[in-house]
Amino acid sequence: MTHPTSDTAADNAVGGSGETVAPVPYPLTDRPGPLDRAELFAIDAWWRAANYLAVGQIYLMGNPLLRESLREEHVKPRLLGHFGTVPGLNLVWAHANRVIRANDLDAVFLAGPGHGGPGPNACAWLEGTYSELYSHIPRDAEGMGALFAQFSFPGGVPSHCAPETPGSFHEGGELGYSLLHAFGAVLDNPDLTVFCVVGDGEAETGPLATSWHAAKFLNPERDGAVLPILALNEYKIANPTIFGRMPESELRTLLRGYGYDAVVVAGDDPSTVHQAMATAMDECVRRIAEIQRAARENAAEQRPIWPMIVLRTPKGWTCPPIVDGARVEGTFRAHQVPLPDARTDPKHREVLERWMRAYRPEELFDADGAPVPRLRAQNPTGARRMSANPVSNGGSLVRDLRLPDWREFAVEVDNPGASTHGATQVLGTWLREVVRNNPDNFLTFAPDELVSNRLQDILDVTGRDWQDEIGPEDDRLDREGRVIEVLSEHMCQGLLEGYLLTGRHGVFTCYEAFVHIVDAMFNQHAKWLDASSRVAWRRPIASLNYLLSSHVWRQDHNGFTHQDPGFLDVAMNKQPSIVRVYLPPDANTLLCTYDHCLRSRHYVNVVVAGKQPQADWLSSTEAAAHCARGIGIWDWAGHNDEIGTTPDVVLACAGDVPTLETLAAAAILRDRLPQLRIRVINVVDLMRLQPNDAHPHGLPDQEFDTLFTPDRPVIFAFHGYPWLIHRLTYRRTGHGDLHVRGYQERGTTTTPFDMVMLNDLDRYHLVMDVLDRVPGLRERAAPLRQEMSDARLTARAWTRSHGADIPEVADWTWPYAKP
Amino acid sequence: MTHPTSDTAADNAVGGSGETVAPVPYPLTDRPGPLDRAELFAIDAWWRAANYLAVGQIYLMGNPLLRESLREEHVKPRLLGHFGTVPGLNLVWAHANRVIRANDLDAVFLAGPGHGGPGPNACAWLEGTYSELYSHIPRDAEGMGALFAQFSFPGGVPSHCAPETPGSFHEGGELGYSLLHAFGAVLDNPDLTVFCVVGDGEAETGPLATSWHAAKFLNPERDGAVLPILALNEYKIANPTIFGRMPESELRTLLRGYGYDAVVVAGDDPSTVHQAMATAMDECVRRIAEIQRAARENAAEQRPIWPMIVLRTPKGWTCPPIVDGARVEGTFRAHQVPLPDARTDPKHREVLERWMRAYRPEELFDADGAPVPRLRAQNPTGARRMSANPVSNGGSLVRDLRLPDWREFAVEVDNPGASTHGATQVLGTWLREVVRNNPDNFLTFAPDELVSNRLQDILDVTGRDWQDEIGPEDDRLDREGRVIEVLSEHMCQGLLEGYLLTGRHGVFTCYEAFVHIVDAMFNQHAKWLDASSRVAWRRPIASLNYLLSSHVWRQDHNGFTHQDPGFLDVAMNKQPSIVRVYLPPDANTLLCTYDHCLRSRHYVNVVVAGKQPQADWLSSTEAAAHCARGIGIWDWAGHNDEIGTTPDVVLACAGDVPTLETLAAAAILRDRLPQLRIRVINVVDLMRLQPNDAHPHGLPDQEFDTLFTPDRPVIFAFHGYPWLIHRLTYRRTGHGDLHVRGYQERGTTTTPFDMVMLNDLDRYHLVMDVLDRVPGLRERAAPLRQEMSDARLTARAWTRSHGADIPEVADWTWPYAKP
Repeated sequence: MTHPTSDTAADNAVGGSGETVAPVPYPLTDRPGPLDRAELFAIDAWWRAANYLAVGQIYLMGNPLLRESLREEHVKPRLLGHFGTVPGLNLVWAHANRVIRANDLDAVFLAGPGHGGPGPNACAWLEGTYSELYSHIPRDAEGMGALFAQFSFPGGVPSHCAPETPGSFHEGGELGYSLLHAFGAVLDNPDLTVFCVVGDGEAETGPLATSWHAAKFLNPERDGAVLPILALNEYKIANPTIFGRMPESELRTLLRGYGYDAVVVAGDDPSTVHQAMATAMDECVRRIAEIQRAARENAAEQRPIWPMIVLRTPKGWTCPPIVDGARVEGTFRAHQVPLPDARTDPKHREVLERWMRAYRPEELFDADGAPVPRLRAQNPTGARRMSANPVSNGGSLVRDLRLPDWREFAVEVDNPGASTHGATQVLGTWLREVVRNNPDNFLTFAPDELVSNRLQDILDVTGRDWQDEIGPEDDRLDREGRVIEVLSEHMCQGLLEGYLLTGRHGVFTCYEAFVHIVDAMFNQHAKWLDASSRVAWRRPIASLNYLLSSHVWRQDHNGFTHQDPGFLDVAMNKQPSIVRVYLPPDANTLLCTYDHCLRSRHYVNVVVAGKQPQADWLSSTEAAAHCARGIGIWDWAGHNDEIGTTPDVVLACAGDVPTLETLAAAAILRDRLPQLRIRVINVVDLMRLQPNDAHPHGLPDQEFDTLFTPDRPVIFAFHGYPWLIHRLTYRRTGHGDLHVRGYQERGTTTTPFDMVMLNDLDRYHLVMDVLDRVPGLRERAAPLRQEMSDARLTARAWTRSHGADIPEVADWTWPYAKP
Repeated sequence: MTHPTSDTAADNAVGGSGETVAPVPYPLTDRPGPLDRAELFAIDAWWRAANYLAVGQIYLMGNPLLRESLREEHVKPRLLGHFGTVPGLNLVWAHANRVIRANDLDAVFLAGPGHGGPGPNACAWLEGTYSELYSHIPRDAEGMGALFAQFSFPGGVPSHCAPETPGSFHEGGELGYSLLHAFGAVLDNPDLTVFCVVGDGEAETGPLATSWHAAKFLNPERDGAVLPILALNEYKIANPTIFGRMPESELRTLLRGYGYDAVVVAGDDPSTVHQAMATAMDECVRRIAEIQRAARENAAEQRPIWPMIVLRTPKGWTCPPIVDGARVEGTFRAHQVPLPDARTDPKHREVLERWMRAYRPEELFDADGAPVPRLRAQNPTGARRMSANPVSNGGSLVRDLRLPDWREFAVEVDNPGASTHGATQVLGTWLREVVRNNPDNFLTFAPDELVSNRLQDILDVTGRDWQDEIGPEDDRLDREGRVIEVLSEHMCQGLLEGYLLTGRHGVFTCYEAFVHIVDAMFNQHAKWLDASSRVAWRRPIASLNYLLSSHVWRQDHNGFTHQDPGFLDVAMNKQPSIVRVYLPPDANTLLCTYDHCLRSRHYVNVVVAGKQPQADWLSSTEAAAHCARGIGIWDWAGHNDEIGTTPDVVLACAGDVPTLETLAAAAILRDRLPQLRIRVINVVDLMRLQPNDAHPHGLPDQEFDTLFTPDRPVIFAFHGYPWLIHRLTYRRTGHGDLHVRGYQERGTTTTPFDMVMLNDLDRYHLVMDVLDRVPGLRERAAPLRQEMSDARLTARAWTRSHGADIPEVADWTWPYAKP
């Protein structure tokens, strides 16, 4: 709105000397544009209603319709939520509804700016969805009171969009992912439009900065459209924004360089802005339709330039212009709560009341507190309401995948260790059929690592999504491609999240070390899954499936920077009901594990598997049984481990390389100490190690003790940082006898076995551990111990001089036939 | 180079049927440009030499000068490293040397593209620095052989730039941080120029995408300059790059929008490209000098448009054009190793030899294998060599900070808990003086959270760095500002890293939950510190200091998304010699801790501290003693805990909120069970909990047992996820009696004490824990247990109805006078 002149300000000042000024109702005036007077009034009234409801959420815990003067007890003791961004969000929603109605659009809203929750909450209540989903929040005075009271209040809803928010599939807590979620949502959704509001603060983040490029992966024939609305209110908490302060020509140039043609809507007079926004919305919707029509009528056009809107309106637009003598509306001071002392300071409280009354609630709500009919007439109907679009509750749309029988892709294993396969390559043959069988609801994402991680067979049935020029030397680029490769883990993760949240399935394959790049995104997605599982109307969505390869143990030449198995530690901190971690030891267990993952719902499945050829241990039948248990004794690998007896030592392992070393150690021990009773345990499902009251997959103590024994030494060879195993097992009976070997930060450039030796996880160390820990063995087996130590030194020296592993290790195979 | 015509290809084909084609020596021709014939020849020769040395590193372990025909044993068994990007890196280095010599520039090189290590290694050897730092790698045939053999070989150097690389302060392992490190390096370095090569793959990452904006924080008067060179070789591992395939006009538009005017250098004919590159370098250096001169003669100009170079040359330029029938040079197949079978396939080996000979090594190296004089004449001298610039070994430049005495900023504490202060606000008063005292080598970074984290006092002595327009309502923006605020944790972290790596000091303050955004960057920086501490010529740099506030326990209205103390877990996985974690319980301990952090070297210091007013526990004298120990008994808080006796129970705590709850529990127990012997232990330095063989700060077992007792129950109230304490203490004697309460993923919108109750970390639970665990107490104290349970329910109900904490908790203070 126009900033009041000094006269108006003085008239409207409270407390004398112009120090706190309430806003005044603004007139609507004739401006050029597509809205006739009635339309202008109607859309403005809807906007005022949404703004009124937003202010009410931030401030009030009583007297929602201002049927009496505001008293202290009507105002919340803690004032939370950010008003600054809310009028912009509400404006976009109001105008989106207009074009939805006019064009029968299938559309959904995505609020990127932080803590703008009061806006979408208000819009969903105006559209009736809030009341349909929450019967204690009806669309009347009582419901309005409840809507206000619950906001940012103990046990209520958070200050940003969240799983509780009708129509939202995007959490507004951590900034930067709005465009990625929007683009992920429209992939394979040709009729969907996402109105995605990007905050100018959010736009400074790295993930958002690269995600503008996501439009380059949009095939206008196959996919829907995102209309980005960059909301420039110029300020963050305390600073101007980069985007708000760039010269406008520079900003438009930047956006044009990103591939968008921006329509600018700017102003502080509501009539002007409404007309400009209506013009811009019509124009953008028309251009999107034109792009899609052209692509669908004549495929393989060049990549389009997509429209977008730059919306430049004052921060906290319509809030008090001056508070305690300082300018608020249009400045960073409007970012959060413009009147911070409204409960205790009568002056602030009076200004709050005048502010809310300036929206003229008596025009907006009837005697029962319900929105008046001409407001309701602005709402689209049924699922056309953005707050009720089923894509925002993706679990209501998700269909089971058509999965081929993984057993048909399993490798033959007549004897353990007799053959070798690259586990991920074998998985790729199965995933190829998954891709083929599910041509419109399964996507694969990779940061340029699909082939490096050996999933190239997928490319037999689809290409890589590419909408720019395709040259003769390019490999499997395709405008219809169902693999999205971009060298940004953030984009892979964010697009997949958007795709899953709107009811589809997918896989993200990544180098293990670099998945830490999206730790924070993983955290937020896991929190969304957890919180949404407590929202009654939300349905479970497909799991987020990671396939982490090129893992820590095979980073020889890449060295130290590429060695980091710590994502497992990050994952394990999240809700046990959400997180699953699998370390399949070979190709068939990987196949079986992944089949399970793609059938599961509402989890994050973290699967770590190697890409290099390595021994096959289990047949498909054995793999199925082993994966069903998640942990088990490999009796063919152990020795003298008869039922009813107790072994002298337990060799446990989790992860493909640790499994290999453990079996090599077992073979040495069997050969050299044939009387020793050895048990070998392999762990596929890491969660089995936890107590059953800590995780749904946890083994009961009694079963754990049966496996690991209560009192015999356990030598545990682990894929990750060793402390994770201690953390999972510290409450177990024999924990004091558990010795874990894993990765520690000692990396250098080396060969695979030397890498293992560098971390003391090698077969020789495991044998020495047994000799040191089984009572009485150390002295008796002193020569063997010396031999192990010598073998290690020999192997290291060989590596240093030959640049390769010593043949007796490189060519080692399991020497025993299955009994 | 020009792709051979089919005739040439046929002539040069090996193995018949044109299937693998060796490159041929290229002629130099007259093209327009600033280089005369001698200069052209000289710069091309230097480039050829660097390319020869790079190919040698990738392939050879013998016969470096090709004095005999290549035999199998001369070729490494594993071929590693990425040739694709190397010719571009070498070209930039060669041309940078020309302008360094011509303009006496103080400059350094930064290689962004992945795995391009052979390039900078080669350049450093040509400049003599390699041999000065590594006497076993002299600048002769023997040294060349050693340079080749060590590359990506066990015990050698990694395939990317690393701490071992002379002249590098940037690790090339994880992509995306090159520009941030470059801009961080030039802050407060007015005479420095960084030639920063950005890979077109790297350019797709989120951190890189936003880091172009870093130039908006460069004050050309105070700071040096970054010349970004976007190296477009069009391909990643297997895909084209977004930047490589954008229409050139769109790319230039994008870069112009980011604030750069790009000079494009493109081609595949060396003569043309050399002339164009020389022209571009001259032009860019001139424009940078012009911008700096204008700013330094007349301050407060508008933000400049900086020059940059777009370098578009073939991937793997000068490598074999065709291998096994497939195009390689100029395609994605040149990304890694163009001739993969050079050891075992005689045909590949022959082409490798012809490839290397095409660089005409006989012109480049003398009979001893040293670079010929006219190559050496191309090198700048002494510290003007980019491989020898001291800024790349920041520890050699770092000066101690002038630190004010923190005791003068301490709050008065006559009795524990009698007063309250916001810890970070108090720290801010001291940091203000740190900023004032160190006006050219200390910077503060925050993602728009400086004031939110209550460090606003810093703004009394400096502003926020801002080079765009400054308006009347802006708060403390300043072209000379020494606080850098940008809503990108990646930018804050990356700029600070660059600043530290080049010998200066700083602080990064961040919301605790969102520091996970830079988990991966932290990991890589910690690895750099660890690896560089093992490189003899690297000196220790200033520590990376985090101040994490707005922490998990005070995220009431922000709710679940803002609750995450897991960065501690990420940090603890790194080398114990590098990582320090501090949880000061009050204002004075925070002051003392931070004084220690700013004096330390080569660590990552993670400090978590609250911003809300809370009890002061220790006087400055007590704080100094407590922080020196890092852990200690608070005898004034315990009860009947005389020297020589053993308490009945130990209440331990780490973190400000857990400390408060622990003391509140202790007070209840003292009041209600006056006979109980209670020990209270507070932990500031989390590393003290580890055994002393696991961390240099670890307590010896005997001391640990003296503090915690070997056999009495310990109730540990912890700031983070509880498993971290178990992980640190699982080897301690009394671990079975250790009960940890911490944060678990259960968040909702609530009040501070309700948040504590939600996680069962509240005083009532702690009291109940004592009653449950001290033998014989449970039955005797059943009424007290019931009372605690009731008090909890009452407090929760109050919160839900009042939206605030119950007064008996909100107003609670420590009730005892110090003895």
